Amino acid sequence: MKSKKARRAGRKAVVLLSGGLDSAVTLYYAKNAGYKCLCLGFDYGQRHLRELECAKELCRRAKAEFQLIKFAMPWKGSALLDKKEKLKGHRLGDKSIPNTYVPARNIIFLSFALSCAETVKAEKIFIGAHSQDYSGYPDCRPEFYKSFAKVVKSGTKAGVENKPVAVETPLLYKFKSDIIKMGIRLRVPFELTWSCYKGGKRPCNECDSCTYRKKGFKEAGIADPAI
Amino acid sequence: MKSKKARRAGRKAVVLLSGGLDSAVTLYYAKNAGYKCLCLGFDYGQRHLRELECAKELCRRAKAEFQLIKFAMPWKGSALLDKKEKLKGHRLGDKSIPNTYVPARNIIFLSFALSCAETVKAEKIFIGAHSQDYSGYPDCRPEFYKSFAKVVKSGTKAGVENKPVAVETPLLYKFKSDIIKMGIRLRVPFELTWSCYKGGKRPCNECDSCTYRKKGFKEAGIADPAI
Repeated sequence: MKSKKARRAGRKAVVLLSGGLDSAVTLYYAKNAGYKCLCLGFDYGQRHLRELECAKELCRRAKAEFQLIKFAMPWKGSALLDKKEKLKGHRLGDKSIPNTYVPARNIIFLSFALSCAETVKAEKIFIGAHSQDYSGYPDCRPEFYKSFAKVVKSGTKAGVENKPVAVETPLLYKFKSDIIKMGIRLRVPFELTWSCYKGGKRPCNECDSCTYRKKGFKEAGIADPAI
Repeated sequence: MKSKKARRAGRKAVVLLSGGLDSAVTLYYAKNAGYKCLCLGFDYGQRHLRELECAKELCRRAKAEFQLIKFAMPWKGSALLDKKEKLKGHRLGDKSIPNTYVPARNIIFLSFALSCAETVKAEKIFIGAHSQDYSGYPDCRPEFYKSFAKVVKSGTKAGVENKPVAVETPLLYKFKSDIIKMGIRLRVPFELTWSCYKGGKRPCNECDSCTYRKKGFKEAGIADPAI
């Protein structure tokens, strides 16, 4: 009898790949599960466009296809899009929504992934959202993914025909340190990932994203190869 | 006591405006209800880009703001995006999904509208979907809009803070002829609307969209001013 992984060989999945640590682990998780991965990266005017270079390099390394989607969000609405706004620090454990929240971003990303998945007949979408550290982002919480599954079921051809594309969130309940350990097991090239929200040449080591990354590596007892 | 309309004066709504008949009626409906409308139009590589010129002109006429969002859907997946594919005729009343269906299109459009609405503090999104004629499109059915409301509630800051953006579908249960009659009452300049799926200078009078429009005007007993 064939293993689950062997049975999945050649089956397609769409992976949302920002170029950050979480999405890199998610790509390797999907690949390790046997899926042929088509990765989508988004240029939506974010400060840290640099992450997309990492996304492309990660795809080359993982032998996955990469597709860039580009659009503007002229209304901004986030410190990640509006350079006039200061990136406000967000204390660990603080449950309020940080000003790096981009309204409806994951909904937009998932909608594109869904359109792509339905077209190329991919059976799954993988997204590296997790609710433990950044519980402040509404579109990283389990409730949101439950609702989105219903949109997939009711609003797409594949859904109506009872073959809805499944949205997988393998990191949803994990802490950053667990994700890092998972990445180590999956041989994720962490040196190619980019987490910093600022657009500099080196990580700022101060923004929320850098802070969570640093804390995660420290708790996992591993040195960050990107620093 | 102020009327409902007067109370709404100055309140903002985001309107999805393709430049077609349905979305034009929807814009005038929202405007008539007292909302200050910000319209979003999408260039997603559709054959009938001409509709966007109509959308802009409709906005000028209705004194509404217009914002164009441009992106590519490289996977295509629809005869509306892939000129190599023939637009297949779809018999009236046929419940199958036509090949003009664009996977997840309304989900993508609504996600952008949601991001915009949340940012500009609009209380509503208006979309001219209707399920009666085109019941073949999954993302034009009431079930889909019910699910999407839950995504808005669970996946956005405004939703989590108990002020979710409401998605209004004023045409959802109407037939094309009723929509046309409604448009006449609202003084919609139908001569500025574009329905044809083909990219020609004049409507082809043959595609599904032309057919439904023709049937609607005939049933409403009104001459189509665009022809």
